[in-house]
Amino acid sequence: MTDFDEVRLARAYLLGVAEPPAPAVAALIAECGPVEAARRIRSGTVPDAVAKETAARSELGDLGVTDADLTRAQEAGLRLIIPEDEEWPQWPLLSLGVADGRGVAGMTGPIALWGRGPARLDEAFDRAVTIVGSRAATGYGEHVAADWAYALARSGVTVLSGAAYGIDGAAHRGALAAGGVSAAVLGCGLGSGYPAGHVTLLRRIAERGIVVSEYPCAAPPARHRFLVRNRLLAALSAGTVVVEADRRSGARNTAGTAATLGKALMAVPGPLTSRTSSGCHEMLRSGAARLVTTAEDVLEDVGRLGIDLARPADRPRRGTDRLSGDALRVHEALLPRAGRSVERITAESGVPAPKARAVLCALELDGLSQRCEAGWRRGSGRGGRDTG
Amino acid sequence: MTDFDEVRLARAYLLGVAEPPAPAVAALIAECGPVEAARRIRSGTVPDAVAKETAARSELGDLGVTDADLTRAQEAGLRLIIPEDEEWPQWPLLSLGVADGRGVAGMTGPIALWGRGPARLDEAFDRAVTIVGSRAATGYGEHVAADWAYALARSGVTVLSGAAYGIDGAAHRGALAAGGVSAAVLGCGLGSGYPAGHVTLLRRIAERGIVVSEYPCAAPPARHRFLVRNRLLAALSAGTVVVEADRRSGARNTAGTAATLGKALMAVPGPLTSRTSSGCHEMLRSGAARLVTTAEDVLEDVGRLGIDLARPADRPRRGTDRLSGDALRVHEALLPRAGRSVERITAESGVPAPKARAVLCALELDGLSQRCEAGWRRGSGRGGRDTG
Repeated sequence: MTDFDEVRLARAYLLGVAEPPAPAVAALIAECGPVEAARRIRSGTVPDAVAKETAARSELGDLGVTDADLTRAQEAGLRLIIPEDEEWPQWPLLSLGVADGRGVAGMTGPIALWGRGPARLDEAFDRAVTIVGSRAATGYGEHVAADWAYALARSGVTVLSGAAYGIDGAAHRGALAAGGVSAAVLGCGLGSGYPAGHVTLLRRIAERGIVVSEYPCAAPPARHRFLVRNRLLAALSAGTVVVEADRRSGARNTAGTAATLGKALMAVPGPLTSRTSSGCHEMLRSGAARLVTTAEDVLEDVGRLGIDLARPADRPRRGTDRLSGDALRVHEALLPRAGRSVERITAESGVPAPKARAVLCALELDGLSQRCEAGWRRGSGRGGRDTG
Repeated sequence: MTDFDEVRLARAYLLGVAEPPAPAVAALIAECGPVEAARRIRSGTVPDAVAKETAARSELGDLGVTDADLTRAQEAGLRLIIPEDEEWPQWPLLSLGVADGRGVAGMTGPIALWGRGPARLDEAFDRAVTIVGSRAATGYGEHVAADWAYALARSGVTVLSGAAYGIDGAAHRGALAAGGVSAAVLGCGLGSGYPAGHVTLLRRIAERGIVVSEYPCAAPPARHRFLVRNRLLAALSAGTVVVEADRRSGARNTAGTAATLGKALMAVPGPLTSRTSSGCHEMLRSGAARLVTTAEDVLEDVGRLGIDLARPADRPRRGTDRLSGDALRVHEALLPRAGRSVERITAESGVPAPKARAVLCALELDGLSQRCEAGWRRGSGRGGRDTG
């Protein structure tokens, strides 16, 4: 039996008692840390707002999570990923924090995430595109979703979707057919076996990719949970593609959130005579989404946001093509000729100083950074290790 | 036999000798008037540029046009419409003059227009929308073109197109089915019977609407003539809708000109799997065109340009809903509270003073303008005649 630390146990408990999004619980955790937050909720000594967010589930009795519970989950192939873990997808989720900070309702980040599958969250969501759409998709929509997911997965992009019937399923299948990484975020617990017709698909996604949920394993699906889940579908990728959607649909909800989070929002056109394309056309006409005609268009649009999703092979190769996440941010904070201090680089890049220092050293090995009197500056990329 | 004045005879001659667009001939006409311009070209005492523009056709022998020629044309149901005529569509064609003045090549206005049909050009093109697209259209494209043309014609909008097979033909037919006015601009002479399969359609258009051409009656169709003609398709309406188009096509050419002229440019989405929608998607993705999903969208987009095409019944009714063309321009040049002189109103609206004065008086009757010390100001629209 593994010995889980108290932080993990506390977060497992908090995930169990708070129905997301739980801004008051999140604020309490930010204030006093997860262990103390869990203690206070257990003892009932919390502000009204916290009590309200944990009231619904408190009826379920004591949700105390023990080492044995987490061990059982682990044996079932699940793991609890917490913000304190290295694989926590902090950069994609930062968009939620920014929106939350701006006062956008419902954008509270998850307390922790249950995951099933070998992919590390930070890696899976470093280069990801969300593909969503109608459950009642047409053959045309499913064809486009599967075809583009295949191409994106072949480009090394994680195809993220919601594992629903229709467009979601086609997207996952396309990515799997390419032997790529697909990720699903569910609006129910990982143990709920929903949707029933996709149990095999979910198992296949978990073989190479990852299935995640912020709900306790047994949590049943519910409409509001899918809407809450949608913010993660929008946040965990660089952009969202809506393949087919009615004027009112869950996909439109995810799309709206993606736009709120400043992510690329793309829509696929279709015949005007098809009702399932009407939501796409509405987003295109209003200018909310950009029209995409190929998977290459998707890579291009996501690239406009400064996230380098296109494969180095698809373009003139530079030493920085391999960089992503922290490394890219740190590199972009360097000036070509003048040096900058680590403090300044930290401020510009948003990457914490210890991490920034490690990244700078790694970049130096590739010739992409150089030490100088004032600190660090950009390297030519020609020195150091072979970057070809 | 009608007695035609020398200006009309001169313009008929100029139309016969100059292959449009003929900027040098147009400049000569602007300099010394059509009668003197015709005399100089006949006598060969013209600058090189003019000689060049009239060289190709001078081989056809003397193109002298007589009263008898115009009488014969009149008997064949044709009339020559010249800029000196009251029905000359001067406001729509102003867009060509502006582009020409900005130095855009190929935007010279027509010397005159041959017309067949009862519709007056100024009235037909006062509220017009151009619908163009592939000759090799799909059933989907033809359905959309015919359906929207029907709706637009029912709204009192003239449906303008090029009488080609495919989208053009469907648009004309839709407008005719609504008992509305359709207009065709040809890239050949009105007597050339082209395209052969549309001779009956052209006859039907001419029964209620108008078929026009800037080419002498017998001029055969030619590829360059269709491209030259396209500037008139773009200029004579408030906006152009591309229903289906390949990446390279005549419709794209018309669309490009419409954008150059500052007209509304709209495109219809379709399935990505249809090659005939690829040009539309390209225009939508680049932002050159706006996506339209219904005929109402078209009316709305054209309305954005300040041209009030939508029927008063379709929206909250205001006194100004009925205004169009000159009246709308004059009304928009009025301030709600402060008065403006007729000179100032003329300068702001671009409507000549005598016309502006007449319009101001007409607006006054509807309560839409008021005389005041400084000249004229906006009225509330509530006084005067019933505007309901």
